Amino acid sequence: VCRGPATIKIDRHNAAFCEPHYIEHIHRQIERVIDKYRMFGPDERVLLGVSGGKDSMGAWHALTELGYQVQAVHFNNGFGAFSEESEAVVRNFAEERGSSLRVYRFSDLMGFEFQEAVSRTTTPPCAVCGSFKRYHFNMLAGKLECRVVATGHNLDDETAFLMGNVLHWSTGYLRKTGPVLEPEPGMARKVKPLVRITDQEMLHYVRSCGVAVAESECPHAKKVTSHLYKRALDMLDQEMPGVKTEFYFGCLERMLPVAGPEWEKNRELGYCPVCGYRTMRSDMCSMCLLKSRVRGG
Amino acid sequence: VCRGPATIKIDRHNAAFCEPHYIEHIHRQIERVIDKYRMFGPDERVLLGVSGGKDSMGAWHALTELGYQVQAVHFNNGFGAFSEESEAVVRNFAEERGSSLRVYRFSDLMGFEFQEAVSRTTTPPCAVCGSFKRYHFNMLAGKLECRVVATGHNLDDETAFLMGNVLHWSTGYLRKTGPVLEPEPGMARKVKPLVRITDQEMLHYVRSCGVAVAESECPHAKKVTSHLYKRALDMLDQEMPGVKTEFYFGCLERMLPVAGPEWEKNRELGYCPVCGYRTMRSDMCSMCLLKSRVRGG
Repeated sequence: VCRGPATIKIDRHNAAFCEPHYIEHIHRQIERVIDKYRMFGPDERVLLGVSGGKDSMGAWHALTELGYQVQAVHFNNGFGAFSEESEAVVRNFAEERGSSLRVYRFSDLMGFEFQEAVSRTTTPPCAVCGSFKRYHFNMLAGKLECRVVATGHNLDDETAFLMGNVLHWSTGYLRKTGPVLEPEPGMARKVKPLVRITDQEMLHYVRSCGVAVAESECPHAKKVTSHLYKRALDMLDQEMPGVKTEFYFGCLERMLPVAGPEWEKNRELGYCPVCGYRTMRSDMCSMCLLKSRVRGG
Repeated sequence: VCRGPATIKIDRHNAAFCEPHYIEHIHRQIERVIDKYRMFGPDERVLLGVSGGKDSMGAWHALTELGYQVQAVHFNNGFGAFSEESEAVVRNFAEERGSSLRVYRFSDLMGFEFQEAVSRTTTPPCAVCGSFKRYHFNMLAGKLECRVVATGHNLDDETAFLMGNVLHWSTGYLRKTGPVLEPEPGMARKVKPLVRITDQEMLHYVRSCGVAVAESECPHAKKVTSHLYKRALDMLDQEMPGVKTEFYFGCLERMLPVAGPEWEKNRELGYCPVCGYRTMRSDMCSMCLLKSRVRGG
């Protein structure tokens, strides 16, 4: 782009960038997505989930630099050294920049430890963590006066999820593909501003900006099948640069608009009798059910 | 299965077979598909396209052993040593078994060489070969009194094609996924009896049965992107045995039944004014167009 030394080459854009132009390029990609999908404006408070990893830390830095009002939220699941390092990373970032951050411990919100939840149910740990976060993002959005919840899901996360749903033809999940999940009553609007950026590109971005990230991996991450889908997609994208982007945005532009109405199961949405949370079950929501199981057991 | 020495292990069936039981297993898989999708009966004449490769030679052998009436058709595109070896393989098989075979040269049917067709148009060689075969299968089906055209497409071919159509969300092609293509006026019914069997399994089958196959590869095969999709799917299936089968049959059972009506483009089907072939163009069919280009150029 300029005459400065190129530090990263992006095949699918057929471009090489020096460091300052690379940062500018990533900011432009994020702005483009925020604008195109009308995610949020500069006057809106955005709840951003921050884990301490490269994606959410990069999103926090970028959104702050771009002038958005970020309310960061971090959950500490009590996974030992991993969780302690992650919390330290987000606390340091908030302190250095004077950014708004709330930290919540799993045990404080739920009344018992994560490990207990996993040992008392047959739900896999990643599913427990997922519903725990979704539930509390929705609850906290109202409490912290944010109409929108942003997460650090990037192109690789999204295409891996899409690949899994396509391989198993989970039409209900396929229907939810996209950078924006519109709100339902009692649920916040969910947005993914990093949806045009890959794992590698985010890693390079946080390094270029000097943003510290947690280096250790979640102890449960090894079991995740999304790693396998990412490997397959990386192989395909290496031989056909841009195929990930086409797969994801092609789904939004060419598949979803012509998907039949039966793709979405006729779900009987109700409200949890204990906490009032929106639920697909006929009885309690998944968090209240988990609480009753752990306490009852 | 029995106490004989196991010669092949199939992870997705969680089974190991000795040679005679393996052959029986493949025959059962083929019969199952023929019955389930009502492909053809023992009293019907089936036109089978035979290239000389493991899939079509294996299909020819299996269908003959199973008592079906096969009329084999081989096209010789004039690709030098590859085409000569392929023709010799199919001629030997027919002679040894006393099976019905017709061989047609591209140049005899078209009036010019394949290479000329490729150099006079921008169509890639695999697309020229594909429409040439489709056209003549349809024409020959009527002439040779066969209501159905069978091909040796196996599970790997089909899932690779599906993967390409999913990555690019080619909804028109996605709609055509399946082991049976129902006939339209002027078009024969197309069936794929090997749709439950992989490349590896077919290779082991022809070796077990002592069926000779052409060893050389089509000179154009290197450029085919389906190899890349097969590699990605092999990687996925190795880690998640059965995922290929689920991807393919899940598409038939869960996706296609709920695909919206817009998936199929409102194609204006007509008839070619030169040869009367069914065509999507408003004017000549692709073969007559190719002929007129080569002759006119």
